[in-house]
Amino acid sequence: MARIVMKFGGTSMADLDRIRNVAGRVKREVEGGNEVAVVVSAMSGTTNRLVGWCQELSPLHDAREYDAVVATGEQITTGLLAIALQHAGVDARSWQGWQVPIQTDGAHGKARIAAIEGAELIRRMQAGQVPVVAGFQGLGPDNRVTTLGRGGPDTSAVALAAALKADRCDIYTDVDGVYTTDPRIVPKARKLDKISYEEMLELASVGAKVLQTRSVELAMNERVRVQVLSSFADMPGTLVVDEDEIVEKEIVSGIAYSRDEAKITVRGVPDRPGIAAAMFGALAAQNVNVDMIVQNISADGMTDMTFTVGTADLPRARSTLADVQPQLGYAEILADPNVSKISVVGVGMRSHAGVANTMFRALADKAINIQVISTSEIKISVLIASDYTELAVRALHTAYGLDGP
Amino acid sequence: MARIVMKFGGTSMADLDRIRNVAGRVKREVEGGNEVAVVVSAMSGTTNRLVGWCQELSPLHDAREYDAVVATGEQITTGLLAIALQHAGVDARSWQGWQVPIQTDGAHGKARIAAIEGAELIRRMQAGQVPVVAGFQGLGPDNRVTTLGRGGPDTSAVALAAALKADRCDIYTDVDGVYTTDPRIVPKARKLDKISYEEMLELASVGAKVLQTRSVELAMNERVRVQVLSSFADMPGTLVVDEDEIVEKEIVSGIAYSRDEAKITVRGVPDRPGIAAAMFGALAAQNVNVDMIVQNISADGMTDMTFTVGTADLPRARSTLADVQPQLGYAEILADPNVSKISVVGVGMRSHAGVANTMFRALADKAINIQVISTSEIKISVLIASDYTELAVRALHTAYGLDGP
Repeated sequence: MARIVMKFGGTSMADLDRIRNVAGRVKREVEGGNEVAVVVSAMSGTTNRLVGWCQELSPLHDAREYDAVVATGEQITTGLLAIALQHAGVDARSWQGWQVPIQTDGAHGKARIAAIEGAELIRRMQAGQVPVVAGFQGLGPDNRVTTLGRGGPDTSAVALAAALKADRCDIYTDVDGVYTTDPRIVPKARKLDKISYEEMLELASVGAKVLQTRSVELAMNERVRVQVLSSFADMPGTLVVDEDEIVEKEIVSGIAYSRDEAKITVRGVPDRPGIAAAMFGALAAQNVNVDMIVQNISADGMTDMTFTVGTADLPRARSTLADVQPQLGYAEILADPNVSKISVVGVGMRSHAGVANTMFRALADKAINIQVISTSEIKISVLIASDYTELAVRALHTAYGLDGP
Repeated sequence: MARIVMKFGGTSMADLDRIRNVAGRVKREVEGGNEVAVVVSAMSGTTNRLVGWCQELSPLHDAREYDAVVATGEQITTGLLAIALQHAGVDARSWQGWQVPIQTDGAHGKARIAAIEGAELIRRMQAGQVPVVAGFQGLGPDNRVTTLGRGGPDTSAVALAAALKADRCDIYTDVDGVYTTDPRIVPKARKLDKISYEEMLELASVGAKVLQTRSVELAMNERVRVQVLSSFADMPGTLVVDEDEIVEKEIVSGIAYSRDEAKITVRGVPDRPGIAAAMFGALAAQNVNVDMIVQNISADGMTDMTFTVGTADLPRARSTLADVQPQLGYAEILADPNVSKISVVGVGMRSHAGVANTMFRALADKAINIQVISTSEIKISVLIASDYTELAVRALHTAYGLDGP
């Protein structure tokens, strides 16, 4: 017997037939002798419609009222799923954020969970009742409904799993797990049985959007075992767990890529202390998020700085740099939006040498030029011309022995 | 300066344009120096859709979960109207039933209001803020959302007006007031400036569905002055007030009619004590609501009983009477669904003789046969063949001097 939190997203709750399907899945877990709590999203499309109404009435609407309106989406699905479960013979009860309560801070529209009172839900689960909890929402210090912002339901589920001391948090989604890379690019991509929190975070941050970053961070901090699985197929998914739980560590677990990168090179920068701080300080002040940074060796008191920003931020980055040109005294700016970031991720590379070299050799064999390199403890990323994205991902997938049968 | 509760129904809140229109009306009252609270219904159509989902998932759904689902309709409109008001420069804040709180009993799906905590709302109104309160809902003793059942928003508004010690409760609807009779039948029908609670109750119970009966009863008990007016036209409506407030009392205030009546005559009933109790007891046990009852003079130890039931109840009434025939020993049953009930209502008839005679003469002049008569202190009702409905209403409207210019 285990205690499980099951979380279903908007696609899984899109209509009454799918809600009945979800009820069937929950019933199977209950009949398997488990204690189950469920966290649900709104029917897909509902939240966007409600958000649209708020914006149409007032572009600068009050976030408190936005929350009151938008939180209804999950209230509807909690009630409907509770009815479907009862109809299937499973004792169930809906819980809104204010009823649990899920206490959040007062940042309406993008609140963070502060505390969840789990005792009553645990008591009911032990008595055989399934709590159906509204994701994406809580109760602020002002006694008003708050929402957690986009992607919040995953975080709700993980936080609830922590509060209920659940053995596992199953996140049902429209993919059936975490893959070694994007199966649309590499047909031989394999589904991973297990992956560590750290790897999942690195994969999420470079574009493998299976779980929201915040929910993975929370799972790591609270040591909640998360399973990503499909609500439409009937098979185990991928477990996201502590590194210690993974006995056979792969050197590299996955290959991720992101096309939403732009490269900026600032040439002829006077090489004096504080110049980098001045440049990146100006960008940060304009909310431009800078990722990979390389500084070339200085010659004649001048240096080149190369870094990447999100494609959407490129115009703002350019205008910001133009504004501070008199202060920085650089020669020129070169920008290239046609670049991709390719990353290999794996906790095993901590203890294995030669991981980077395998990457460089595989890319060189395909005549792919590396423009920028950056590394972290469990990740190596390179920037390449975006035309080579698929070729690079396939070559690396093979080079690290990830190809499936 | 007055304190006013304004209530807007689903038609008035049907889309964003109408919600903006409502915000404009509220703003005018606020700018007139009044303290205003608003009670809203869900957008028209929303409640039916939500109810339909519950029924489709389970015909015998849990009323607690039904309430959680259905209450979202008003939650959405409170938030949207608060946003529209703020956008129009009016300080406003949404309030759900559980936030006020509006305490109800535990009869989920058809709860009754037990108490409303008005102090915080009064404090905010005095500070210039407009509370926008969800109608139709409250908080049950189990800390769960309750709904008041169909028509509940009118009752919410009247109860809130009582709790807030409001000077007036304005019910905005799609008619512009209470008329002397149905203007579709009598083009010369006049809008009444004032009508007493008692008259309004009698008119409501005989088919003039402007206000829900329960809300009028509550207004009468709590002495809340109610105004019925149009949310689309810009003019005063009809005030529903205590009889003492009406200086110039009309003898007859209105003529109402109902076609949803069926007449049953039970012939050859043995005239012995307890026979009526046995007959109507059997009907009551089957939830058949009996209205007008006439017993003919007994002859040869036999009597005839005539009474009316709702048209929808006629089949059940017949089968119930057939079941108890051996016990009652009556001769035969005659049923006629083609009858209408015509009622004249007026508090003035308490102190005026000859009101009934005017009715009988006016109908006789048009050769309309009266089948059954029943009277209360402020109402006289007759049953006639339904073909004569319009003719009778017009004749009576003229006979009592109600015709407008």
